[in-house]
Amino acid sequence: MGHDGKSENFVLKRIFARAAASSQNLAGGAVRLGIGDDAALFRPKRGHEVILTCDWFLEGTHFLREKHPPDAVGWKSLARALSDVAAMGGVPRCFLLSLTMPESHTGRWLDAFLGGLRRASRKFNCILVGGDTTRRRKILINITIVGEIRKARAVLRSGARPCDIIYVTGRLGEAELGLRMLKRSTTKPRSSNPFLRKHLYPEPRLAVGQWLAERRLATSMMDLSDGLSTDLPRLCAASGVGACLESAKLPVVQHSSAGPVPGADPLQLALHGGDDYDLLFTVRPGKVNMLPKTLHGVPLTAIGRITEQRELVLLKQAGRERQLHPGGWDPFRNKR
Amino acid sequence: MGHDGKSENFVLKRIFARAAASSQNLAGGAVRLGIGDDAALFRPKRGHEVILTCDWFLEGTHFLREKHPPDAVGWKSLARALSDVAAMGGVPRCFLLSLTMPESHTGRWLDAFLGGLRRASRKFNCILVGGDTTRRRKILINITIVGEIRKARAVLRSGARPCDIIYVTGRLGEAELGLRMLKRSTTKPRSSNPFLRKHLYPEPRLAVGQWLAERRLATSMMDLSDGLSTDLPRLCAASGVGACLESAKLPVVQHSSAGPVPGADPLQLALHGGDDYDLLFTVRPGKVNMLPKTLHGVPLTAIGRITEQRELVLLKQAGRERQLHPGGWDPFRNKR
Repeated sequence: MGHDGKSENFVLKRIFARAAASSQNLAGGAVRLGIGDDAALFRPKRGHEVILTCDWFLEGTHFLREKHPPDAVGWKSLARALSDVAAMGGVPRCFLLSLTMPESHTGRWLDAFLGGLRRASRKFNCILVGGDTTRRRKILINITIVGEIRKARAVLRSGARPCDIIYVTGRLGEAELGLRMLKRSTTKPRSSNPFLRKHLYPEPRLAVGQWLAERRLATSMMDLSDGLSTDLPRLCAASGVGACLESAKLPVVQHSSAGPVPGADPLQLALHGGDDYDLLFTVRPGKVNMLPKTLHGVPLTAIGRITEQRELVLLKQAGRERQLHPGGWDPFRNKR
Repeated sequence: MGHDGKSENFVLKRIFARAAASSQNLAGGAVRLGIGDDAALFRPKRGHEVILTCDWFLEGTHFLREKHPPDAVGWKSLARALSDVAAMGGVPRCFLLSLTMPESHTGRWLDAFLGGLRRASRKFNCILVGGDTTRRRKILINITIVGEIRKARAVLRSGARPCDIIYVTGRLGEAELGLRMLKRSTTKPRSSNPFLRKHLYPEPRLAVGQWLAERRLATSMMDLSDGLSTDLPRLCAASGVGACLESAKLPVVQHSSAGPVPGADPLQLALHGGDDYDLLFTVRPGKVNMLPKTLHGVPLTAIGRITEQRELVLLKQAGRERQLHPGGWDPFRNKR
């Protein structure tokens, strides 16, 4: 039991010092007590409900220590958890960070990680209020987000009804393409590439989600984290409905801005690619004219409709149809 | 990408089915939406603040797969996180479970784990409302607890003042003794042994914490998770004070009910043993007569006093004194 290294107090202090500056600016009175006690205290607005969600972000499962820059690990760990708040239509308030790392990473790596985390924290107005750290050979991250939404305004997965039009935000498959580029690259990744950027620094669709929830325009909503072919069945199951997608309408990646990656079929990427953190939502047919083509710079695209028959059908360009099976990311099915 | 095993949907369903029965009984209207959507929704009581805390519980770091029964892993993962709510004087409401495990453990092990988790969930009125699962070689657990407390009633670490009397609940070092017994045992542990029980199935001191907070009797409070010699300095640092402990007053383990463990000195166990999840709190000298000797069956023991001088002193039985140095559990200092 030697005093041979950094103490937990030391690591916590470094995290808190980094977080403190932004906390004071952003708290806005909602957080009464931040880091440094047994627990944090949060005072929700009157007439609001508290949104709670947590997300793993694990070395080897969700990112690679050698390939993913530490500031991207910090940014993405928060951004992907925030995507669940976007999917409810809510406003993020604060988060808890659980972190393990080897002692070798409590210096420069930790600083860069916290830098990325703080940039995301500022950009999305969500402040660090607590957490837990311990030493471990692997870098393990778990983030809990606390958000808010006016009572009875949250958009659930279970509200889709037959004839509703199915929408997605953004372009699907971009993050998957970025991941493939990252895996093939032998040099430091250029974050100016839009596909790499979407993989490394995803932007949760908070503004779109809030806009839809405030106007009660979406009958159901969820975020696309595991790929359309895996996530759409989840929304359909929660709503007790089926869906019919038109492959020609899917907003697939456009290769113009980057060299092609061999074996990357845009339709397959859009159907099965994960990590986009775009929103999937449904709108009553009579209300689709209230949706703009883009919102806060993000394209909104109708890709099909909800059906009564509980199955997923993909209409091919030639008019033929086929059953769609989940091909996205499922940790208990896929061996990566 | 074969359909070779359990899917995440399957694992989630098993967890939710286990949790559902208790959720309906305990929700009491506070939780509007439980498991199965992007996030959970929680409606706090008016005039209350939300308490937020999270805790790692990791194979190899906090428990051993071969030594710790799965139902104890389930119970303890929740109980130790609840201890942070007890330390604020709060009432637990709901929790999020993040879990990874190998596919080999999604059957019997998972069932037993969820059994222990559900028993703790019922006993302490804290319901499962969401989480995240993924497959991984190691069993990793992270628990986030959401609790409540009336505005401005939470007891912080920072309120201790010189002359305050220092108290602890329970007997210190019992859980450490239990851990040593567990490590030495070659057979299935007998949970009738009180030390083993305290290590495997700790009971967070929620009732005592709430009692102290409601009456505004504690000037500061925290829970003892890493050992008195490590945790007391944290309370003192937060309050900007020092402390003087009387070793003769420490409620040490009593060996009568179990065979002695070689090398286990009761005073050392009480000072440096971790995992007791008892409460450490301070009371103004003029109010100590309002404290009973035991509360809800838990002994309350005065063990020293807060001093102005920012150092920790241990008064030995012979009247000599020495500086007390942290000797408890710190993951970045200790190599276990």
